[in-house]
Amino acid sequence: MKNILYGTAYYYEYLPVDRLDKDIEMMTAANINVVRIGESTWGTYEKQDGVFDFSPLDKVLDAMHAAGIKVIVGTPTYAIPTWLAKKYPEVMVQINGQRQPYGARQIFDISNPTFLRYAERIIRKMMAHVAHHPAVIGFQVDNETKHYGTSSENVQKGFVQYIKQEFNNDLDRFNHEFGLDYWSNRINAWEDFPSMDGTINGSLKAEFDKYRQQLVTDYLKWQVDLVKEYRQPDQFITHNFDFEWRGYSYGVQPDVNHFDASEALDYAGGDIYHPSRKHLTGTEVSFAGDELRTLKHDNYLVMETQAQAFKQQVPYPGQLRQLAYSHLASGANMIEYWHWHSIHNSAETYWKGILSHDFQPNPVYNEVKQTGAELKKLSSHLVNFKIKSEVAFLVSNQSLTAVNAFPFSDERNYNDLFRSLYDQFYRLNVRTDITDEHHIKLDDYKLIVVPALYSISDDFLKVLNDYVKRGGHVIYTFKSGFADEHVKVRTDRQPGIVSEASGVHYEMFVDPDGTKLVGQTPSLQDVKDDSLKDWMELLIPDTAEVLATYDDPNWSDYAAITKNQFGKGSVIYMGCYPSAEVITDLVRDYVKEIKLNTFAENFPVIVKQGQNDLGKTLTYYFNYSSKSQTVKQPVAGNELISDQPTQQQFQLAPWGVAIVEED
Amino acid sequence: MKNILYGTAYYYEYLPVDRLDKDIEMMTAANINVVRIGESTWGTYEKQDGVFDFSPLDKVLDAMHAAGIKVIVGTPTYAIPTWLAKKYPEVMVQINGQRQPYGARQIFDISNPTFLRYAERIIRKMMAHVAHHPAVIGFQVDNETKHYGTSSENVQKGFVQYIKQEFNNDLDRFNHEFGLDYWSNRINAWEDFPSMDGTINGSLKAEFDKYRQQLVTDYLKWQVDLVKEYRQPDQFITHNFDFEWRGYSYGVQPDVNHFDASEALDYAGGDIYHPSRKHLTGTEVSFAGDELRTLKHDNYLVMETQAQAFKQQVPYPGQLRQLAYSHLASGANMIEYWHWHSIHNSAETYWKGILSHDFQPNPVYNEVKQTGAELKKLSSHLVNFKIKSEVAFLVSNQSLTAVNAFPFSDERNYNDLFRSLYDQFYRLNVRTDITDEHHIKLDDYKLIVVPALYSISDDFLKVLNDYVKRGGHVIYTFKSGFADEHVKVRTDRQPGIVSEASGVHYEMFVDPDGTKLVGQTPSLQDVKDDSLKDWMELLIPDTAEVLATYDDPNWSDYAAITKNQFGKGSVIYMGCYPSAEVITDLVRDYVKEIKLNTFAENFPVIVKQGQNDLGKTLTYYFNYSSKSQTVKQPVAGNELISDQPTQQQFQLAPWGVAIVEED
Amino acid sequence: MKNILYGTAYYYEYLPVDRLDKDIEMMTAANINVVRIGESTWGTYEKQDGVFDFSPLDKVLDAMHAAGIKVIVGTPTYAIPTWLAKKYPEVMVQINGQRQPYGARQIFDISNPTFLRYAERIIRKMMAHVAHHPAVIGFQVDNETKHYGTSSENVQKGFVQYIKQEFNNDLDRFNHEFGLDYWSNRINAWEDFPSMDGTINGSLKAEFDKYRQQLVTDYLKWQVDLVKEYRQPDQFITHNFDFEWRGYSYGVQPDVNHFDASEALDYAGGDIYHPSRKHLTGTEVSFAGDELRTLKHDNYLVMETQAQAFKQQVPYPGQLRQLAYSHLASGANMIEYWHWHSIHNSAETYWKGILSHDFQPNPVYNEVKQTGAELKKLSSHLVNFKIKSEVAFLVSNQSLTAVNAFPFSDERNYNDLFRSLYDQFYRLNVRTDITDEHHIKLDDYKLIVVPALYSISDDFLKVLNDYVKRGGHVIYTFKSGFADEHVKVRTDRQPGIVSEASGVHYEMFVDPDGTKLVGQTPSLQDVKDDSLKDWMELLIPDTAEVLATYDDPNWSDYAAITKNQFGKGSVIYMGCYPSAEVITDLVRDYVKEIKLNTFAENFPVIVKQGQNDLGKTLTYYFNYSSKSQTVKQPVAGNELISDQPTQQQFQLAPWGVAIVEED
Repeated sequence: MKNILYGTAYYYEYLPVDRLDKDIEMMTAANINVVRIGESTWGTYEKQDGVFDFSPLDKVLDAMHAAGIKVIVGTPTYAIPTWLAKKYPEVMVQINGQRQPYGARQIFDISNPTFLRYAERIIRKMMAHVAHHPAVIGFQVDNETKHYGTSSENVQKGFVQYIKQEFNNDLDRFNHEFGLDYWSNRINAWEDFPSMDGTINGSLKAEFDKYRQQLVTDYLKWQVDLVKEYRQPDQFITHNFDFEWRGYSYGVQPDVNHFDASEALDYAGGDIYHPSRKHLTGTEVSFAGDELRTLKHDNYLVMETQAQAFKQQVPYPGQLRQLAYSHLASGANMIEYWHWHSIHNSAETYWKGILSHDFQPNPVYNEVKQTGAELKKLSSHLVNFKIKSEVAFLVSNQSLTAVNAFPFSDERNYNDLFRSLYDQFYRLNVRTDITDEHHIKLDDYKLIVVPALYSISDDFLKVLNDYVKRGGHVIYTFKSGFADEHVKVRTDRQPGIVSEASGVHYEMFVDPDGTKLVGQTPSLQDVKDDSLKDWMELLIPDTAEVLATYDDPNWSDYAAITKNQFGKGSVIYMGCYPSAEVITDLVRDYVKEIKLNTFAENFPVIVKQGQNDLGKTLTYYFNYSSKSQTVKQPVAGNELISDQPTQQQFQLAPWGVAIVEED
Repeated sequence: MKNILYGTAYYYEYLPVDRLDKDIEMMTAANINVVRIGESTWGTYEKQDGVFDFSPLDKVLDAMHAAGIKVIVGTPTYAIPTWLAKKYPEVMVQINGQRQPYGARQIFDISNPTFLRYAERIIRKMMAHVAHHPAVIGFQVDNETKHYGTSSENVQKGFVQYIKQEFNNDLDRFNHEFGLDYWSNRINAWEDFPSMDGTINGSLKAEFDKYRQQLVTDYLKWQVDLVKEYRQPDQFITHNFDFEWRGYSYGVQPDVNHFDASEALDYAGGDIYHPSRKHLTGTEVSFAGDELRTLKHDNYLVMETQAQAFKQQVPYPGQLRQLAYSHLASGANMIEYWHWHSIHNSAETYWKGILSHDFQPNPVYNEVKQTGAELKKLSSHLVNFKIKSEVAFLVSNQSLTAVNAFPFSDERNYNDLFRSLYDQFYRLNVRTDITDEHHIKLDDYKLIVVPALYSISDDFLKVLNDYVKRGGHVIYTFKSGFADEHVKVRTDRQPGIVSEASGVHYEMFVDPDGTKLVGQTPSLQDVKDDSLKDWMELLIPDTAEVLATYDDPNWSDYAAITKNQFGKGSVIYMGCYPSAEVITDLVRDYVKEIKLNTFAENFPVIVKQGQNDLGKTLTYYFNYSSKSQTVKQPVAGNELISDQPTQQQFQLAPWGVAIVEED
Repeated sequence: MKNILYGTAYYYEYLPVDRLDKDIEMMTAANINVVRIGESTWGTYEKQDGVFDFSPLDKVLDAMHAAGIKVIVGTPTYAIPTWLAKKYPEVMVQINGQRQPYGARQIFDISNPTFLRYAERIIRKMMAHVAHHPAVIGFQVDNETKHYGTSSENVQKGFVQYIKQEFNNDLDRFNHEFGLDYWSNRINAWEDFPSMDGTINGSLKAEFDKYRQQLVTDYLKWQVDLVKEYRQPDQFITHNFDFEWRGYSYGVQPDVNHFDASEALDYAGGDIYHPSRKHLTGTEVSFAGDELRTLKHDNYLVMETQAQAFKQQVPYPGQLRQLAYSHLASGANMIEYWHWHSIHNSAETYWKGILSHDFQPNPVYNEVKQTGAELKKLSSHLVNFKIKSEVAFLVSNQSLTAVNAFPFSDERNYNDLFRSLYDQFYRLNVRTDITDEHHIKLDDYKLIVVPALYSISDDFLKVLNDYVKRGGHVIYTFKSGFADEHVKVRTDRQPGIVSEASGVHYEMFVDPDGTKLVGQTPSLQDVKDDSLKDWMELLIPDTAEVLATYDDPNWSDYAAITKNQFGKGSVIYMGCYPSAEVITDLVRDYVKEIKLNTFAENFPVIVKQGQNDLGKTLTYYFNYSSKSQTVKQPVAGNELISDQPTQQQFQLAPWGVAIVEED
C-alpha cells in the first residue's frame, strides 16, 4: 500500500432514493478514498435464474472512479436470491434434520453442490464484468463465512469420508481413539456411522467441528481461486473475518480457523467492533489487530468497524477519531466503517452508519471528516507501520472447540480465559502477536502465552519443551496438555508432557467454591482480590518454585501457581483461574524478570511503538479515559498531528492521541 | 340496556354432578340476572360429524328463563372437537411448518376452509335452535379470537394475494418500499415469495401481522353475519376481546385490531383481569374500560372478570364489590364473572370461580350476593352511565407491531410505554378515551397523547399538525413519526413531519446507560427520580422550549423534553423515557396549563364523573388502598349506597366506594 | 449376605490400554471384593446383527474369579448399538412426533417390539454365557431405566387400550371422570383419541404418566423373568434405581414407580449421589437408603455412589470413609463406587472415578484402601444391619405427577415439600421408612408423614382415618386429599375425607405474598423465621386446636396449622408451607408428645441405631461437620473401629464416625 485507505461500505442498492452523486460529494469532502460494495447483491444482479444485469454496479464503479475513490468488490454469495431458495430448497442449512427457512443471510450449506454451482456462475459473471475496471483495487471473497452449524446429509457423508481417510479405513483404531465403546456408540461398519446431530462423544463433536471449519477454509480457497482467474496483477484478494461475537468482537472465532483460512488470501481483513463510550478501552481493537496482523505477518485491512452502530455504541465526541489511530497503531492499512448510510428497512435498521437515515451531516460524519483530513495529511508517516512483538499468544481453534465440549465453567469459555490474560498484557503495554499451534514461529518470541491448550499432539508439546530448554519462556494455564489431538485424555500423570518443563504434576482438580488464593511472592502476598474462579488443580511441585497456594485447609499443601527453570528458559504454570489483579502482578513481575521491552505508562495510557515506512520509530500514545492524562517521559521527536517537537512531558486529552516520530 | 346486567359464565357441561336447579337457586339469591353459556361446547353438542344434540342447551335455557335469568349464547368455535382434528389434521395451526398437536383451544387456523365449513354448520344449527328462545338476549361470536401465530400455507398464499393487490401487481414498487434488496431478499416473481417463517425484514413482519389481524377481523365479521341471519330484533351481538396478557390485562392486544374488529359488533365486550389484594390499583379496569367504551363510543360489556381466580388474585374482603362499581364507573353495563363454579379437571382447575369446587357459599359468593343486592337497588341510577373525556390516547396496532420488530428496549415494549403514560393520567384523575389513528375523532378532544407512533402515514401526521395548529394539544414520545406506514424509516430529518408542530429535530439517539435527566422547569428541577430508561434522542430545539436536558457532559447541549407553541395549540415532545415521577409532573403541569377539568383528589382516591340515565351528574369516589381516606370537597348531592346527602367532607373506607348523584 | 460387599463399577471395554491385571492388583490391595460390569456393552459384544463375541467378558470374569473378586453382571440394554439404530430408526424415542437422534443412552422406546426382540436376544446370549461362571453372584437388569418421555405411536395405542380396559369401554364414564367436555376435548369414539403430545388435561397427563411408569415396571419384570431362566440358585437379581436428579439424588423418582417396579427384584439397589465437601450433610444417603430399604423391607445395595465425581464433588479427606459407614448405617449391604477409572473420552470424562485418568494411586484411592481394610475387619459386625422405624413417610408417585400438572409453586415441586419434612426428621435423629399408598403397612408405625397426597382414592383416605381412630398419628400437608385417583378435584368441602380426622376444613386458599405465620404454641411463638412459601389454605377449625395463624388482617381469623385428637390418635394438618425452623419445632414437639424414640443429639451429630447380625444393638455416630463434636451420653459398649469401650462422653473428629456395639 502507498496510502492509508479510509472509507466505508457503500450499498447503492439499498438507497431509498438515488443520491449517488450527493453521497460521493460528501465522501470526497470527508477524504474518504475507498468503498467496499457488492456483498449481498446476488438477488439484485441476477433477478432470475441466469438473467444478469450489472448496470447498477457499473454506475457506481464509474462514479467512484470519476471521484478518485477506490473500490473493493465483494463476491455476492453470503445471501442467496429468493428464486434459488424456492427452486432448490435443499441448499438451506439443515440442523437436526430441520431445513432452515429462507430469510436470513448465511443460512445455506456452503458445501452443497447446487449452491456451489450457482455461486460459481454469479462470481464468474461478476468478476468478468468488473475485473478490468480501473476503480477496482481488490476483492473480498464472501463475507464473515462460517459453517452455519450445518449437518446436512452431504456434510455427514463428507465427514465419514474424512474419518475414513484419517484412519486409513481402520475402524478399530478409530473406535479406540475416540472411545466409542462408551455407551455402546461403537461403529462397526462405516455404513452404521450415525448422524452427528445426537452425538454425546466430545471427541467426535470436536472432530466434526474441525471438519466443518475445514469446509470454510476450502470454500474460501475455492472462491479465491475463482477470483484469481479474473483479477488483474495489482488487485488484491481479502476476506472479512470476524470474531466471537458478544455484541462486539470478543475473542477467537469458534467456527472458522482464521490461521488456516487466511493462507489463500493476499491480505488479512476483518470486522473489528468494540464497546464504546465509557466502556471503550481499545482492547478489542488491539487483540483483533494483533491476530489479523499475525495471520499474514503483515499489515491488515479493517473491513468493518462501527460508526454510530447501535444506540449503546454511539461514540463520545473524539472517540471515532481516536479509534482510527488505534487501528493504525496495531498495523491496519485500511479503516472502513460499516456503513455509509443507515438503512431504512429490515434487520440492521438500527445499526447506524456514518450518516443517519436523513443523509445529513451530523457529529459523527463531521468527526469522520476531521479524521479523514488528518489521515490524508499524515498518510506517508502512518502507512505500512511495522511492529515487532517479543510475546506471542498461542491460541488454538482445536482447544477452543474441545473446551466447549468439556467446559471448565458454566459461565466462562476458552475466550474468557484468553482475554483474562490478553487484557493484562495490553494494559501493561507489552506488545503481543496472536497465532496458533500450526503457524507459530517460536524463535521469533521470548515469551509464549498458552491459555488452556487442552487438545494437542505429543509432538507439539515436545516442541514447546525444547523451546524452553533452549531459552524460551512459557506461561501455561490449567487444563493445558490434558488431551491429545483427538480430545482423548492422556493416561500420563497430568499435565503430561507439560510436566517436564513446568516441574509440577497433579492427581486431582476441584472446584474453588469459595477457596482463596494465598500469594507466596512479595507482589502476590499483597493482592486485594484473592478470589478464584471455576477451576483448581491441586499442583504438586516436583522442581518448581511455588508462587501461590490455596487457603482451604484440606488442600493447603498443594500449589496453585508455580514457576520452573528448565534448561535456559522458564515456565509459569497457573493451575487455577485467579483475579485480573493477580494476573497483572504475575505478568508484570515475569516481564521484568525475563527482561522484555516495556514502557513506563499503563492503561488508561496505551503506548504502541514500531517502524514506519520512512524507516523511523513511531510511537502512538492513547488516552482511553474521560480524564486528561500526563505522559511523563515521552519518546523525543516530532508529534505529527500537532507538528510540534515533544516536550519533557505532555498532556493527553480525554480520548486523545499523540504520535511521535523520532527525530 | 334498561338494567345493569350482573352475572357469570356458566358451564353446565363441565359440572361433575347435575345441580342446575341448585345453581340457579344460588344465583337468584345473589341477584345474578345474566349468564353466558356455550363457548366451548362443540364437542358436546356435535359428538360426531353431523350428529347434533342440543338438549343440554335447551335444558339450561329453559331453567334460566324460568328463573328470570337472561342468557348470552356463545358460538362454540374457539375449541374444536376431537373428531374434527382427527379427520382433518390440516386445520391445526402451523408454525415454522410444524402442525400444532390437538389439545388446547385456539390452536387451529381460522382461515382454513375446512374449519370454516364445519364452523358454519355448527353455528347455523345452534343459532336456528336458540334464537327464538325468550331467555336469550344476545350472542357472543367466538371467544378471545386471535390468529394464533398461524403461518399455514393458505395464510401465506392469502398474504401474497394481499400484497399483490396493495401494490397493484407492481413488484418493483413493493421491493423498493420494503427494502428487499437488503440481504438479497428481493422478490423478482410472485411465485418466489418466501414463507414468512424465516423473514428478517421488519416491514414484511409487520405487514404479515397486519394481514393476520385482518384475518381475525374478517373471521369475526363472518360470524356476525351468520348470526345476524338468525337473531331476533332485540338480541345483540358482541365479542369477548382481551388485552396483552401478563397474568392480567396489561395493554393493547397485539394480535387483534380491536378498533377494526369491533365495527361489526353491536356492543363492545371484553375480558378485564387485574392484580388483586395489595396490588389492586384499579388501573386495568380503567384503561380496559376506556378502550372498550371508546370502541363503540357507548357503554360496554365486561364479559369476564375475576372472582377468586388464581391464588395470587383472591380478593381482600370488599375488593370484589369495589371492583363491580369500578367497572360501572368506566361505562360498563354488564359485569360477568369468570366463572360460576371452579372446574374439577383440566387446565383451569386453579382459576377459581365464584364458588369453590365444593359448590358451597363462601366469602366471595357472599360478597357477590351483597353486591348483587346493591346493584339491583341502584340499577336505574347506574345504568347507561355516559362519560365525556377531554383527553384521548392514540394507540396504534401498527406501531405496536412495528416496535416489536424494532424494539427500543430489551425489557419493555410498546405497552409499557403506553401504560407509563396512561397510569399517570389515571392517578391524576384525568379522564381519557383510547382509540387509534383510523378511528380518532380529533376535535372531540383537547389533548391527544401519542405513545411511540412509530409507523404512520404522512397524511395522518399532517392531520395531527393541523389539529395542533387549530388549537389542539399533543404529547408525543420518542420514536414517533420515525417510519412510514410500511415501517420504512423516513428520509426526513427526524422526527419528520412531527418536527413542524413540535419545533424540534434530532440527528442521533443513544442509550442512556446511566445518564440522568436534568429538569429545566420548577417542577422538574425537584424530581427525586431522575433516571432514564432505554432511549435518548439528542433533541435540537428549533422553536421549542426546553423542559429538560441530559447530565452527560458529552450530550448536555441537547434537549430531552420540549414544549412548543404551534398555531393555536402546543406540543410536548418526550425524546426520552423518564421516571413515573417526571411524567406525573409533566402531565400535572400541562393539564393545568391547557385548562383541563380535574379533581382535587389523586390516587389512591380515584374520581370518575359522568351523566346517568336520569340525566344527572354522577360522581364515583374510590379508595384503592388499605387505609381510610378523606374526600375533602365532594360534589354536593345524595350518596346512593347509603342514601345520605354528602357532607362537607367524608371518609372512604379501605377499598371503599361512594357514589354521589347531584341534587 | 455374609459379608459387606465393597467395590466399584468396572468398564474393561473403556480402557485405553489393557491393564486388567494391574487394576485387579490395585483392587485387591484396596480390599475391593465386588465389581459390577457389562451395562453398556451391547455394541461391544454384538458388533453386528447376530454376531456375538463375549471373549472380553470371559477374560474379565476369569481374572476377577482368580483374584477372589465377585462380579455383578448387568444386562447391556440401556444403550443400543449403532447398527440397530441405523437398521430400525423407529426404535428411537419420539417426542411430539420427533424421533430423537442416536447418540445418548436411554433414548429408545422400551415398549417398541423391534427393540424388545433384539434386547431379548442379547440378554439370552449373555446370560447363557455367564450364568454358570463362579465369579458371578448376581445380575442387574438394565440401568436407571425410565420411559424417556416416549410418546411413540405404539405407546399412544397402548395407552388407549389401557383406558378402554380401565373404563370397561365406557366412554361416557371416562369423559365424565376426566372432565373432557372442557375445551371441547370430549372423546366420542375411541378412534378419535388424540395424541397425548398436546393434551391440556391434567388428569390425562397424570394417567399417561402412570401408564408410562407401568411400562417401566413391565419392562423390568420382563427382563427379570428372562434372567430367571438362566440364573443359578444363589445368584440374585437387582436393578439400579435412581432418584430425582438435581446434580445429585434429591427425591422421589418422577418417571419410575420404585414401589411397584421393585416387586420383581430380589434386592433393591440404587444410585445414591449427594453434595460433598462443606455441603455434605448425609441427608441424601439417609433418605435414599430409607426408601431402598423400605422397598423390600430388607438390606439393599448401593449400586453407584461417587468417588471423585465432578470437580464440585471431590470429597474432603475423611468424607469418603465416613460416607461408606453412612450407607451401612441406613441398611446397605454393598457399596459400589461409580467407577473405577476415569474415562478418557465422551460424555462422562469429568465424572471421575476412584482413579484419575493416570491410573495412579491418589488420595481418593488411598482412602478407599483404608476404608476397605476397616470394612473387611468389621464385616461380621456390620453386615445385615436391621432397622426398625416408628415413623413412615408416605410418598406417592401419583401425587407427585398430579402436582406437576397442578403445581403449588413456580419454584418448588412435590419433592421440595417432601424434603422440607424429611430433612427435619433426619436432623432430629428420628428414624423413618419411606413407602407409598399401595405398600404401606400402617400398623408397623406410630406416625405417618404425608406430604401433599394430592391424588388419592376415597378408600385410602378412609383407611388413614381408621388408622388414626385406632391410635395412629398423621402429619398432613396442604393439598392432601384434594383430588381423586384420576386427579379430579373432589366436590366435598376440602380437605374432603381428611377433614374427618383432622377436624378442619377450608373454602379458599391464597398465595402468601408476604404473609407471615403467627405461632400459637410456646415453641412456635418464638420462631425467628416466620416466612411462608407458595400456599396458604384458610383453615376453619371444626374440632382442631390451632397451632398457628396468619398475620394478614384480612385472613387473621383463619388457622394455618392445626392439631386434632381423633379417636385414639391425632392429626397435624399444615395448611401452609412454613420455614424449616417452624417444621423443626412442630416435629420436635409432636415426637415428644406421641413419645417416639429419640436421641439427645441433633445434626450435625447423626445417630443411627439397629440390630446387627450378631443380635446386638449397634449405634452409629456421625459428625457431618468440619468441627469436632462431643457425644455426651453415648450408648455403653465397644467402639468397633478403635476397639475400645465407650467412655462417659467422647469426641467425634470432623467428618468422623464411631460405631458402638452394646456389650
